[in-house]
Amino acid sequence: MNKPTGKLKAAAIPTGERPGSKKVWQAGALWPDIRVPFREVAVHPSSGEPPVTLYDPSGPYTDPAAKIDIEKGLDRTREPWVVSRGDVEIVETPREVKPEDNGFAKGEHLAPQFSAPRRVYRAKAGATVTQLEYARRGVVTAEMEYVSIRENLRREAAGIRDGEGFGAEIPDICTPEFVRDEVARGRAIIPANINHTELEPMAIGRNFLVKVNANIGNSAVLSTVADEVDKMVWAIRWGADTVMDLSTGRNIHNIRDWIVRNSPVPIGTVPIYQALEKVNGVAEDLNWEVFRDTLIEQAEQGVDYFTIHAGVRLPFIPLTAKRVTGIVSRGGSIMAKWCLAHHRENFLYEHFEDICEIMRAYDVSFSLGDGLRPGSIADANDEAQFAELRTLGELTKVAWKHNVQTMIEGPGHVPMHKIKANMDEQLKHCHEAPFYTLGPLTTDIAPGYDHITSAIGAAMIGWFGTAMLCYVTPKEHLGLPDRQDVKDGVIAYKIAAHAADLAKGHPTARAWDDALSRARFEFRWEDQFNLGLDPETAREYHDESLPKEAFKTAHFCSMCGPKFCSMKISQDIREAARAQNEVDSGMAEMAQKFRDGGGEILVPV
Amino acid sequence: MNKPTGKLKAAAIPTGERPGSKKVWQAGALWPDIRVPFREVAVHPSSGEPPVTLYDPSGPYTDPAAKIDIEKGLDRTREPWVVSRGDVEIVETPREVKPEDNGFAKGEHLAPQFSAPRRVYRAKAGATVTQLEYARRGVVTAEMEYVSIRENLRREAAGIRDGEGFGAEIPDICTPEFVRDEVARGRAIIPANINHTELEPMAIGRNFLVKVNANIGNSAVLSTVADEVDKMVWAIRWGADTVMDLSTGRNIHNIRDWIVRNSPVPIGTVPIYQALEKVNGVAEDLNWEVFRDTLIEQAEQGVDYFTIHAGVRLPFIPLTAKRVTGIVSRGGSIMAKWCLAHHRENFLYEHFEDICEIMRAYDVSFSLGDGLRPGSIADANDEAQFAELRTLGELTKVAWKHNVQTMIEGPGHVPMHKIKANMDEQLKHCHEAPFYTLGPLTTDIAPGYDHITSAIGAAMIGWFGTAMLCYVTPKEHLGLPDRQDVKDGVIAYKIAAHAADLAKGHPTARAWDDALSRARFEFRWEDQFNLGLDPETAREYHDESLPKEAFKTAHFCSMCGPKFCSMKISQDIREAARAQNEVDSGMAEMAQKFRDGGGEILVPV
Repeated sequence: MNKPTGKLKAAAIPTGERPGSKKVWQAGALWPDIRVPFREVAVHPSSGEPPVTLYDPSGPYTDPAAKIDIEKGLDRTREPWVVSRGDVEIVETPREVKPEDNGFAKGEHLAPQFSAPRRVYRAKAGATVTQLEYARRGVVTAEMEYVSIRENLRREAAGIRDGEGFGAEIPDICTPEFVRDEVARGRAIIPANINHTELEPMAIGRNFLVKVNANIGNSAVLSTVADEVDKMVWAIRWGADTVMDLSTGRNIHNIRDWIVRNSPVPIGTVPIYQALEKVNGVAEDLNWEVFRDTLIEQAEQGVDYFTIHAGVRLPFIPLTAKRVTGIVSRGGSIMAKWCLAHHRENFLYEHFEDICEIMRAYDVSFSLGDGLRPGSIADANDEAQFAELRTLGELTKVAWKHNVQTMIEGPGHVPMHKIKANMDEQLKHCHEAPFYTLGPLTTDIAPGYDHITSAIGAAMIGWFGTAMLCYVTPKEHLGLPDRQDVKDGVIAYKIAAHAADLAKGHPTARAWDDALSRARFEFRWEDQFNLGLDPETAREYHDESLPKEAFKTAHFCSMCGPKFCSMKISQDIREAARAQNEVDSGMAEMAQKFRDGGGEILVPV
Repeated sequence: MNKPTGKLKAAAIPTGERPGSKKVWQAGALWPDIRVPFREVAVHPSSGEPPVTLYDPSGPYTDPAAKIDIEKGLDRTREPWVVSRGDVEIVETPREVKPEDNGFAKGEHLAPQFSAPRRVYRAKAGATVTQLEYARRGVVTAEMEYVSIRENLRREAAGIRDGEGFGAEIPDICTPEFVRDEVARGRAIIPANINHTELEPMAIGRNFLVKVNANIGNSAVLSTVADEVDKMVWAIRWGADTVMDLSTGRNIHNIRDWIVRNSPVPIGTVPIYQALEKVNGVAEDLNWEVFRDTLIEQAEQGVDYFTIHAGVRLPFIPLTAKRVTGIVSRGGSIMAKWCLAHHRENFLYEHFEDICEIMRAYDVSFSLGDGLRPGSIADANDEAQFAELRTLGELTKVAWKHNVQTMIEGPGHVPMHKIKANMDEQLKHCHEAPFYTLGPLTTDIAPGYDHITSAIGAAMIGWFGTAMLCYVTPKEHLGLPDRQDVKDGVIAYKIAAHAADLAKGHPTARAWDDALSRARFEFRWEDQFNLGLDPETAREYHDESLPKEAFKTAHFCSMCGPKFCSMKISQDIREAARAQNEVDSGMAEMAQKFRDGGGEILVPV
């Protein structure tokens, strides 16, 4: 295991390969310097099966050869791709860090600055440097080939595809051209700020694997820089595909710097949070200038997507008055307060094209925020929510006009029978721009277990077509997630995302389940653990009852014991049936044989 | 809190009311000695809201006035109802406990017998004493009125009913006659062995609240009697509606006695497990006589429903040969082994009418076992599974001919897009007899988290019409569940069941979510905890960040802190809007007012 070095090494940045997994890479064909990582899980040679290739968003942290030093940040492997396109320039005088960027934190309260030098880029005057721009021009970028290899998971033919895709068009093989075409028509995005050169590109779209986002971020209470980096690394270790930094309070700029410089996955933010800090938390004092300044600040840092609550229009606010839980989006409520205080249209809506101008110069993607999403079962699918959704559809067209990549955020709290309508409305009004939903939670009655109430809704909406699922942790509604909550949230959502891939008939999905099930049937315990989402926990649970190493090869487990093991009996039956076919001697004869043999024929493992 | 007394008091039998809850009762109108329990959660007086009435399967253990002594068992409150019908007789010479009933356990290995005296009943010669028999005769039994009161949850009118029921016919008010009619047409069962006189009756049917079953039971390793009783009490404390004792190995008879005598919920078993123990674990040595003996033994003990794998027919066994995971039901694999060894039709199938004869004399309900259920995503909805399901439909008609109550067991492992077909096939072939499913798990890739993989499937199939969901714990596939696993499993399934009730539009479902959401919006933290499925955990999570008592009335939480609290801002907005309407002074003017007031108007709590 590699060890983090430097002053901040005390933090528990988790590194090293995951148990039973090997990190492997595949090079690009169009772009030979591309090196796409996978997690390969080998199974016991007795199975005669090839290793299983799994998607791997964990970055260099699981590369045993990588030197991790969070004070230096990750290698900037993407920088040459960005520069080679010839359409960016170095920002000679990047925006300087101002006291308000960190909430006026001073002295010991000020988190250290990330100090390793780097270049800041932006588009040359008049240029648009977005993946959407390139795709529409017919260009296959390095990012696109990277994504195509990543999504293809080394498959040479489609696996079993008996799903119901509700109009998804997932190809048997994922090619660079397919990625380009999906991006070109706005059906997928590759969130990839040109200043996030540490990025391992990934795609969000309904014709790709369903993705998972994990939220981190400090709150009013100061959390250390290393803790937030640790949470980010921890989240991607368990499978998070993007991370949103939802920090508020002090040190918001400096913490974000550390996170972006050390993140191989796209980082999303909600810029209005920082803008609000800059005006001392008084929503009414927000204005376009401070917001614009924040966008540039964060774009130069390398944030890959911005949640922008431009759909919270003044006339929609009264629609929330009779709700059980009003407005529950932080950004939505801030903008609503501003609109009401000034009795003016949302300045994010009015300046939407100005925002596009900025974002296209860095290739920051829109995550159009659902500021009026329902916060309770009672408020699901109401007019406030759908009025905003239709507005987000209009804004999508505006963003696309500027070649800015765009996805749409969705609810929230929705009972099962109202989930499909969310997806249908989104597809209809937002022109197939990727949908990115929070859960949805399918009931309000289980505080402390909302990773489960929402995994149900997330699996369903993922099946229906949502491209990325924003996780919910057990702490939702109660407090800030700690490390264990982050893990529990990510795993619940990896389950939801994969259940969705399976049900959609994604050509790589079934292979994973089948490999694990075969291991289960053949009592390959180690394979069963290693192929699971959480090998450590599976092994621990098994060992609680049967700790001895010998039981790792036992043809039973503690659930039923040897006499009652259906899998063992089933293997006996199968062996008997096979023998019977071979001698073709009829069932009755075979039965006699089986009895004579004591009925206890074991398949050798 | 009442304290368990007697020799076994050392065991941690959990008693006392749940936090913030009060145990209340409602008497019968037709049967005045009926006393139906509810859990009433009072909310803060500031809300002006009535208490919330919740379904309560926890029995006398949460009655602060009850004296719990597990050596005596619970009060036999149901005995007079059974006797008063005049169709039962006392069994003068009940079947004696034989050494093989406890797996030949001896000396210190033999669990103590439950020794408090009781009468054993059976039907008078020729009589049928099932709820189905009574219902078809037009009789409303005490059990039926009990169930109707219980299911009605003290409602006087239907709540919000905007669900999609897929053909469910849930009435606005649940009357005794409705319960009778549902039982009469076989669409619901009231599992209630006449020898389980400690029972608080409940119903399983798609037009009632979705129920949850929890499995307990010792395995090859000896678990103490008190531990199993504790697990049962623990499971119902968190909301399990029935409990299956899946014990194998030694002491199976004695442990079951302790469980039944102390259980207010129906107890189910799989009699073939004990029958197999009686023939020393050699499946080929099973025969009708030893099985019949076991049925009578357990019927006299008071087991309320039997899982009988009569649908595992000889010709279906070869259909499992090409499966990834063969036969995964313990009972199914035992019967398959027997069939194959003898090359004979399943004796449970051949003796099905004999089984009905026994069960109708005690009112034991059938849970027709799905011995060929899929054990992996790969095997879902295959011909083996559906061939058996159709057979279970035929057997349902046979059982009904004998007036034996019947439900049907279902899978298992099923990807989301194949779940609905399970329900549709079951409804079509099993004539609306209640469906009782295990999960289903929607992916195989998460050993250690199968309470979540399966809660997704359980919520969906519950919505589609499944009447009872058999829980899956985090230990599934890995080991025997401990206390924490039982709790985690029950809570995941209470979530699934309630999400299903909501989506079906059950007339009582929304009230619970809405009460909790209003508490959340009004920062009534204590109410939010107490209304949740697990108040202790919710409180603990909240207090991790904000431990001080003052924060229990704070208008924010640690998630966002005071400045970013959307709910607080939303309340400000609402207050402003309200004031504005009152003065009718136009939006712009109000905006000025709002600004002048600092925009920080708080709604007093």
